[in-house]
Amino acid sequence: MINIQRLSEHIEQLSLIGRTADGGINRFSYTDDEKRANELVAQYMEAAGLTVRYDVVGNLIGSQTGTEDLPVILLGSHIDTVPDGGRFDGSLGVLTAIEVIHSLKEQGIDLRHPVKVIAFKDEEGTRFGFGMIGSRAIAGTLSTTDLLRMDEDGVTIEQAIANDGLERRPLSSAKLDNVKCYVEVHIEQGKVLERSDAAVGNVTGIAGPLWLKFQLIGLAEHAGATPMNQRQDALVGASLVIAEVEKMAKKYHSSVATVGKLIVKPNGVNVIPGEVEWTVDIRDIDEDKRNLLENDIKQYAETVAKERQLHLHVTELQRVEPVQCDENIQNAINESIQEIGENVVSLPSGAGHDAMQFKQNFPVGMIFVRSKDGISHNPKEFTAEEDIEKAAKVLYKTIVKLDR
Amino acid sequence: MINIQRLSEHIEQLSLIGRTADGGINRFSYTDDEKRANELVAQYMEAAGLTVRYDVVGNLIGSQTGTEDLPVILLGSHIDTVPDGGRFDGSLGVLTAIEVIHSLKEQGIDLRHPVKVIAFKDEEGTRFGFGMIGSRAIAGTLSTTDLLRMDEDGVTIEQAIANDGLERRPLSSAKLDNVKCYVEVHIEQGKVLERSDAAVGNVTGIAGPLWLKFQLIGLAEHAGATPMNQRQDALVGASLVIAEVEKMAKKYHSSVATVGKLIVKPNGVNVIPGEVEWTVDIRDIDEDKRNLLENDIKQYAETVAKERQLHLHVTELQRVEPVQCDENIQNAINESIQEIGENVVSLPSGAGHDAMQFKQNFPVGMIFVRSKDGISHNPKEFTAEEDIEKAAKVLYKTIVKLDR
Repeated sequence: MINIQRLSEHIEQLSLIGRTADGGINRFSYTDDEKRANELVAQYMEAAGLTVRYDVVGNLIGSQTGTEDLPVILLGSHIDTVPDGGRFDGSLGVLTAIEVIHSLKEQGIDLRHPVKVIAFKDEEGTRFGFGMIGSRAIAGTLSTTDLLRMDEDGVTIEQAIANDGLERRPLSSAKLDNVKCYVEVHIEQGKVLERSDAAVGNVTGIAGPLWLKFQLIGLAEHAGATPMNQRQDALVGASLVIAEVEKMAKKYHSSVATVGKLIVKPNGVNVIPGEVEWTVDIRDIDEDKRNLLENDIKQYAETVAKERQLHLHVTELQRVEPVQCDENIQNAINESIQEIGENVVSLPSGAGHDAMQFKQNFPVGMIFVRSKDGISHNPKEFTAEEDIEKAAKVLYKTIVKLDR
Repeated sequence: MINIQRLSEHIEQLSLIGRTADGGINRFSYTDDEKRANELVAQYMEAAGLTVRYDVVGNLIGSQTGTEDLPVILLGSHIDTVPDGGRFDGSLGVLTAIEVIHSLKEQGIDLRHPVKVIAFKDEEGTRFGFGMIGSRAIAGTLSTTDLLRMDEDGVTIEQAIANDGLERRPLSSAKLDNVKCYVEVHIEQGKVLERSDAAVGNVTGIAGPLWLKFQLIGLAEHAGATPMNQRQDALVGASLVIAEVEKMAKKYHSSVATVGKLIVKPNGVNVIPGEVEWTVDIRDIDEDKRNLLENDIKQYAETVAKERQLHLHVTELQRVEPVQCDENIQNAINESIQEIGENVVSLPSGAGHDAMQFKQNFPVGMIFVRSKDGISHNPKEFTAEEDIEKAAKVLYKTIVKLDR
């Protein structure tokens, strides 16, 4: 069904472009290395029978027509990396999609729907601190203002596009309409599949992060001279909230909530903490649940502040809308997983992906592949060849089902 | 009973020596300003009928004989300051003791016991990072090795003593034996008296600090991609312990326990904390209680670590023995407080004092005076004249009682 040797060879060849001293990859948008990577991937696309073009922002698009006049099935991922990134994050999705189309062609299977395989421009946001440039353009949400963002050398996205020799056209020309669905293969970047002893998983949705900053202000007094019942200790207050954040997040099945960052002031051994600041990162693929959890956490913090005569300030740092994966696509993925004899594991994606950008445009689905120790964005990123083969088979079968 | 105008005038005059631009005081050991301060205090001592001398480390000692051949009643405090310190911390104790002796002389009251009023050398430890030099010498615990400690300019305590023109004698010559008791007046440096609406308080003991460092190691994973039930979150573990530290300290009547310093690693919004380090400052005047509390906290932390698959390391940073104040002295102080019509408030001292050095030598007692907003070591340090008068009266009455 799949030529795993060819797919593995493509992964290997692509990983050589932008290779760092420690075996990682530096491949940032609109650079020479990224251009060479695009050219290599374009060759693979052409070998798979796809017609290659670049759109106005530099998305690499390989297209084939369908046997009928139907909406397009979109496949893809990205080939840019974080600094010293791994060889699977992004690249695996692009190359797997090409391999599936290549295999279908070899097997003489013509799809009813047209297909486009896309290597989206700059998913990671490494160069401009602003990611998913390509998928935003496809969704029609990338604005000319966005293009004014600069890299460290003061080069704007607009200038980078011009320097790249891309044809000048309106941004709107990149928007894709009449799309049936989008399906992407990606490494998990977590350990859920590994812990479930599963090679592949069906993604239920992409849990957009809500980031809140909590600030609790008490009174910094002498740790020796202030009795326990006369204190306004901001850190004890914060601790009660943090312990409760875990409890509350566990109540909601799919939610995660994390206090990752915390700063104590004045942070002296013999001074009662007068101020504590901490962040809460709340994620759920279900926005209603995320809102409920947000509310629970805020209310609990307010109660603690009131009981302990502390002052509470809560600030919103970012609020990204979660995206639910389409049920039909999920069903097709799940059936495909069963057909290759694997257990069906469904899981949300905690990390962001290009698919998020298509929330208002067309249905999306994602297939996750087991990622060793959950490591990603790191030269140690690793996915076994047999898992990649299974993922490719699942994508193959899913496309065939969705094409019916 | 007390000449409060004279005492206030002495406090004012002494506060002018080493005065800083913002009204604070810089008076460090073996400096010209400290020498001038000693000379002024020596004048006050002589006016009070005391015979003045300096011992081998530079303690200023004013002595008078008793009517009987009895052990000495020791009184005193220190006149050195922290950088930009206040006018009451230390100085108040020395000047109040002199005023009491002066008043007794004026009133023709001869004490049965000999009396020594001492301005102890370098209580604060500002210059050499090593405090209570004078009281250690009096206790006989100051070693010749201690004298090798250097200030920022590389001058040792030994050199500073020599430069000061003090007579060269063995350190042991400073040790005072045949002492009946030591009594000291000091500002509270906390808010317990203020909150109890009390001018003076009886100190039950000096709660030596025990400082522990806790380190909890979990696993730093992606905040979005790691389900709640698969986490080894070091900060949630730490939070449970910190909330419990407060609860456990409250169980023991006189104990305080404070987590003042806490550091999270890697401290990223979207990364589960992989490591948290925090300190616990535990104090009690009762060493057994402090040991029990220490044990409770350690055991709880171990339980949390075990339940959550975290690794715990506990390190001891310092362990200072607490000192209990003598019951007879406390009774004399309490009766004196009642006799001047004030409420009796007993409280431990969270901060350290010269009296701690005498634990193995002779009984000690301390009288605290209300300190506005608990501020000390600061130009804003303030104690009202009427409170000072009450403290002086309590010291007067206490000495008369102890002399019987």
